Amino acid sequence: MNIRFFNGTILTLENGTELSSGEVWVFDHLIGYVGKPQDNNIKWDREINLNGNLIMPGFKDAHTHSAMTFLRSFADDLPLDKWLNEKVFPMEARLNDDLIYAFSKIAIMEYLTSGITSNFDMYISPNPVIQASIDCRFRTVMTGGLNNFTQTVEEIDECYKKYNGYNPLISYELGFHAEYTCSRELLEGMASIAKKHQAPVFCHNSETKKEVKECLDRYGTTPTVFLDRLGMFNYGGGGYHCVHMTKDDISVFEKHGLSVVTNPGSNAKLASGVAPISKFMKKGINIAIGTDGPASNNCLDMFREMFLTTSLAKLKEKDASAVDANEVLKMATLGGARAMGLRNCDTLSRGKLADLIVIDLNQPNMQPINNITKNLVYSGSKQNVVLTMVNGNILYEKGEFNIGEEPEKIYETANKMLAKIK
Amino acid sequence: MNIRFFNGTILTLENGTELSSGEVWVFDHLIGYVGKPQDNNIKWDREINLNGNLIMPGFKDAHTHSAMTFLRSFADDLPLDKWLNEKVFPMEARLNDDLIYAFSKIAIMEYLTSGITSNFDMYISPNPVIQASIDCRFRTVMTGGLNNFTQTVEEIDECYKKYNGYNPLISYELGFHAEYTCSRELLEGMASIAKKHQAPVFCHNSETKKEVKECLDRYGTTPTVFLDRLGMFNYGGGGYHCVHMTKDDISVFEKHGLSVVTNPGSNAKLASGVAPISKFMKKGINIAIGTDGPASNNCLDMFREMFLTTSLAKLKEKDASAVDANEVLKMATLGGARAMGLRNCDTLSRGKLADLIVIDLNQPNMQPINNITKNLVYSGSKQNVVLTMVNGNILYEKGEFNIGEEPEKIYETANKMLAKIK
Repeated sequence: MNIRFFNGTILTLENGTELSSGEVWVFDHLIGYVGKPQDNNIKWDREINLNGNLIMPGFKDAHTHSAMTFLRSFADDLPLDKWLNEKVFPMEARLNDDLIYAFSKIAIMEYLTSGITSNFDMYISPNPVIQASIDCRFRTVMTGGLNNFTQTVEEIDECYKKYNGYNPLISYELGFHAEYTCSRELLEGMASIAKKHQAPVFCHNSETKKEVKECLDRYGTTPTVFLDRLGMFNYGGGGYHCVHMTKDDISVFEKHGLSVVTNPGSNAKLASGVAPISKFMKKGINIAIGTDGPASNNCLDMFREMFLTTSLAKLKEKDASAVDANEVLKMATLGGARAMGLRNCDTLSRGKLADLIVIDLNQPNMQPINNITKNLVYSGSKQNVVLTMVNGNILYEKGEFNIGEEPEKIYETANKMLAKIK
Repeated sequence: MNIRFFNGTILTLENGTELSSGEVWVFDHLIGYVGKPQDNNIKWDREINLNGNLIMPGFKDAHTHSAMTFLRSFADDLPLDKWLNEKVFPMEARLNDDLIYAFSKIAIMEYLTSGITSNFDMYISPNPVIQASIDCRFRTVMTGGLNNFTQTVEEIDECYKKYNGYNPLISYELGFHAEYTCSRELLEGMASIAKKHQAPVFCHNSETKKEVKECLDRYGTTPTVFLDRLGMFNYGGGGYHCVHMTKDDISVFEKHGLSVVTNPGSNAKLASGVAPISKFMKKGINIAIGTDGPASNNCLDMFREMFLTTSLAKLKEKDASAVDANEVLKMATLGGARAMGLRNCDTLSRGKLADLIVIDLNQPNMQPINNITKNLVYSGSKQNVVLTMVNGNILYEKGEFNIGEEPEKIYETANKMLAKIK
């Protein structure tokens, strides 16, 4: 499909948050042109008048567990350990691949409504999550959820080989659940696979104080330093959450060029704490933003996460100038793409993958217009997302989904399945 | 107009957050019936099939400065005093009533998109704010913004007499800006008017640590206790923000039945702190939620404020079970109505004013369905608001406004006016 977007306000993210006006041409799955209107004799399948609205790269949800939509608002307002052990784990034990597939589809729909064009997903069974993305034509970077009870080092190795090159929409990064859910043996196994593939490794890291304390008790050092000593991060990677980080931990991230994936909504709702974003920024560490899964958030909304990333940093540092919103916008796009290894879908530039969104500026929350990029972070909302394109396909437009199955059918299937396991 | 909503999921808020299914009938500006379907020979102007979607009382935005849309994203990521003195005040000095009217209309549109059916507004000039609401058919409770530079005690007295009974959509509560912007003489004047009318009084209170410290230096006591000693709260009222509150302050609120209006988004973005919501709840103090103005938030979104109210409390108390979401939902509706003196538009009940909203449950952020009221707080979004009715009039439906003027015209006027004063 050849699609021409014209009459747009353009945020390429090539030059910070600078805006321009003009056209974006999409040829099949690639961006073919970004710039001023020019004569052409291209046969367009669609020509879309943006009426001055904003066109920009899609958001990257850099940490999530899509299938956990089935636990959305299932058990809130409980202490963390009760929530996890009495509510989440017993329900997850009843899952199978069909259920994971059905519940993941709802998450994909929600990503699309929030202008999210790809996700970095970790779950107990990767196959149905990946299949849901392929069937919806959504882009997913999957990572391993290895722990003492689920998946093995060999399985992770197999997945790495199987899913890289499997489908243009899918890639796979090495990963394990967390230090506190993996034996030392498992972790050493992971480090050896990282070495074998010379590949980055991702995991939950220092999400709670308890986790850090237990690692200190167990190994005499923090999770980050301990994992680094095993050689886990010799080829890069990153950590999800990174709330309770010491100076040494931050140095490890700096040394290996690791990415921090911050999850402010989940960290707030579960009372885990606020990540030291300014400290990471000062060290030049790549920062990405994730929603975490819908069991702990409970929504998959990059606008809410962006607002939280800056406003919680401001609260933490008692400084209204902390963590500029334009930096947060870059985290939600460029930072995510870098963490997820999506080098080819970061900016809105010729030759990049056509993962892009259109933001309606003719809504009251954007008016009158003083500063469009700050509006995205401070007053933007799902309501402003009028179009979401992944890999050149328009999957969401003006409230309508184009993902191969009717929304009503997806909801009905998911609710029926949920009723069975409750 | 006689309007019948049928096939709905109903949250009346009469019995906590209990849900039922059935119909809601609106006759002119009042709710005529809520319950199971029943035979009738009423001539309906409209019959709306809710398809199982939720119908509930509208949200009350219990503290805002509508006209400040003109400063939305105008000056963010600055320290508080620089933001206020170098950016906000010089721009506000250029305002006139025409501008305030135009900028207020954009706020009203935004309230409607967020399911907000009335606002508690404080601004330097009340008349154009009130006129904008009347022209849009929106409900506004106005309060005085008295300070050393704007408005006088006599003007507040006049407004109180003029605007109560002025229009069915408008009421007026006594108010002043804050202790730190009013001389003792002014404050004593306010207290005497409160006595004269036996009326409640509202003001910004203990928003920042600096404000409390300066009052301690000036009068040897906190703002709340100082104002109470002047007799300010003998007939009730409340405080906006209430972030830095002592035990004695909370006792004053308890003693006089005052309302706390919390503004978590603004308090976070300006790095002011987190209000002690659980402490207020334990004392049975009425709590309402406000967005504050769009200069400091920067949006007028009750969904974001509800999520922040509970999640910031959880962070503050390091307890994921703090401030249950169902309580937050009551704050955003019943709590607001009580603070604003809107006794007649709190619940969805026969004889109450028809200020109500319809929430689309057939959106991915609400699916699959485990708990609808928790979804509202934890995953709800403007995207779910499909209809907003104020005083029996449908002012917003499926993205379209019905407020007497076209949105494009309102944006155009506001942007032109903004360009002139920049």
